[in-house]
Amino acid sequence: MSEAIYDLLAIGNALVDVLSHADEEFIAQQCADHGMNRGAMTLIDEKRAVALYADMADGVEVSGGSAANTMAGFASFGGKGAYIGKVADDALGDIFSHDMKKRGVYYNTVPLVVGAPTGRCLILVAPNGERTMNTYLGASVEMGADDVDADLVASARITYLEGYLYDRDQAKAAFHKAAEIAHEAGHRVALTLSDPFCVDRHRQDFQYLVNHHVDILFANEDEITSLYETETFEQAARIVAGKCEVAALTRSEKGSVIVSGGEAVEIPAIDTKVVDTTGAGDQYAAGFLYGFTQGMDLRTCGYLGALAATEVIAHIGPRPQIDYHELLEKVRAA
Amino acid sequence: MSEAIYDLLAIGNALVDVLSHADEEFIAQQCADHGMNRGAMTLIDEKRAVALYADMADGVEVSGGSAANTMAGFASFGGKGAYIGKVADDALGDIFSHDMKKRGVYYNTVPLVVGAPTGRCLILVAPNGERTMNTYLGASVEMGADDVDADLVASARITYLEGYLYDRDQAKAAFHKAAEIAHEAGHRVALTLSDPFCVDRHRQDFQYLVNHHVDILFANEDEITSLYETETFEQAARIVAGKCEVAALTRSEKGSVIVSGGEAVEIPAIDTKVVDTTGAGDQYAAGFLYGFTQGMDLRTCGYLGALAATEVIAHIGPRPQIDYHELLEKVRAA
Repeated sequence: MSEAIYDLLAIGNALVDVLSHADEEFIAQQCADHGMNRGAMTLIDEKRAVALYADMADGVEVSGGSAANTMAGFASFGGKGAYIGKVADDALGDIFSHDMKKRGVYYNTVPLVVGAPTGRCLILVAPNGERTMNTYLGASVEMGADDVDADLVASARITYLEGYLYDRDQAKAAFHKAAEIAHEAGHRVALTLSDPFCVDRHRQDFQYLVNHHVDILFANEDEITSLYETETFEQAARIVAGKCEVAALTRSEKGSVIVSGGEAVEIPAIDTKVVDTTGAGDQYAAGFLYGFTQGMDLRTCGYLGALAATEVIAHIGPRPQIDYHELLEKVRAA
Repeated sequence: MSEAIYDLLAIGNALVDVLSHADEEFIAQQCADHGMNRGAMTLIDEKRAVALYADMADGVEVSGGSAANTMAGFASFGGKGAYIGKVADDALGDIFSHDMKKRGVYYNTVPLVVGAPTGRCLILVAPNGERTMNTYLGASVEMGADDVDADLVASARITYLEGYLYDRDQAKAAFHKAAEIAHEAGHRVALTLSDPFCVDRHRQDFQYLVNHHVDILFANEDEITSLYETETFEQAARIVAGKCEVAALTRSEKGSVIVSGGEAVEIPAIDTKVVDTTGAGDQYAAGFLYGFTQGMDLRTCGYLGALAATEVIAHIGPRPQIDYHELLEKVRAA
């Protein structure tokens, strides 16, 4: 096993989020007219991004990207992390890079100089806090195997991959290269299934990955039932048990279930007022992986996931607005 | 008097804000090292903007610009408004334009295609909510008299100008052209002194303007005492009385005083938890001017100013997060 310099390396689509409030009628209309999936992620092209943006209310711009959000949370807990993902050499790319670095995450992917602008995710936040995402991948599409720094991957105890990467061939190649290097170095590979529609698009591939390459799997209820096409969450949880070392399955207000070996640990959700669910799954993974890399037991890992997810859904935006390490200290003292 | 199509036209520096939390030590250090003025606005060049941004924590990007914020609030009350200010033809400029239009503000200034990027204001928010602003004007510097659409100015009942415009010759020319057209059309000119250091830079000019060209003046305590170089607020308030039709003088938690003719109306502040003072003066002006253009009495105008300022300091960002018209309806019903 190579010596680990980083606790966690994440690879994902580097995006800037544009978040704005939307009423039910607007969301319903957009879903009906443009095949948008309420509460999920829809890939859109630049033309559609321009048109949707023109229709959206004024909003807030913040750095996003699923795995990047996880790294921001992981670093906020005090974990040592790195990130690979591609932005363009433009104003939004500068913001993304700045924000990763200021979170203390090592980030050194070469930006795209000629071609698409930095990718963005146009997010409609419903009155109940549920977010519907529309992603124009932009420059993030161009991330490929060349962007995967082999030494960096070999130096991370866990390499965490977004299922979203499977939507583009170059990113998929980066995904495979990283997983291979991580395992060769004797380290672990984690995967988040990202989105139920993403699972639909890549079901066979994801099943194969989980069976053969993934040590730690993250999925929510919709994703895991989609992966195994089961009627119930319980059926899916039974199937995934034993297929990988750990599966952390989130169920929104029902909390989460961690399946490992013969064990299934249930973690209750923490009550809070939901403002914007953007980043909930990302921050659950951040808390869980921080606990895991610190050698905590699965129940504590799940609790840290719940703690982080609870913080992030209480405000607009996908990243922590408080220091998770301080939050953890407070909880421990209480 | 020409027929008014817009209740209010504002002319100002079009900026995107980058807001991030900063601790006292960081702010003190930056002020000491770079001549930054705590609680005020400092003009910076691109090089300094890059350096400061590199030092700032990760943040949130939102459309800003003092007079533009006022227009967003004015429109939120239900006022019919227009705005003139220059962005570049880039991602941040698109965001600014989008946000103005989605607020229902008429905005048609031609963006700068070659030259500086869209201007930005790097804002450090202290733990007590006080904001310290650092403005890289970027493309907004290039706004000049050519950008002042004479028909648009003539069609507005009030033309509202930022004192900040006086910091650059081209913008100053735009300012003068607009004031002249407004008065020729038989309409009013309003001015905000913007910032005590801005007043320091242009004291004689501003005194002349207030004496000869300004109908409605907005200033906070620091600005009005700087304008007349008085020891006390009361002295300054006595001097300004009679120099213009109305002076609305804000005093943070002490509320505001509206001086008009022989009258001085005191408006108490509304108690709230301060999160970020960015936009407080801008939204006070929005509420006041909405009341004024609706023919309300000065006490009600001041109350609407206080109402809007109270909303905006309770959250991060310089623009309303709720509908001011609905807020007003609720207050009326209570």
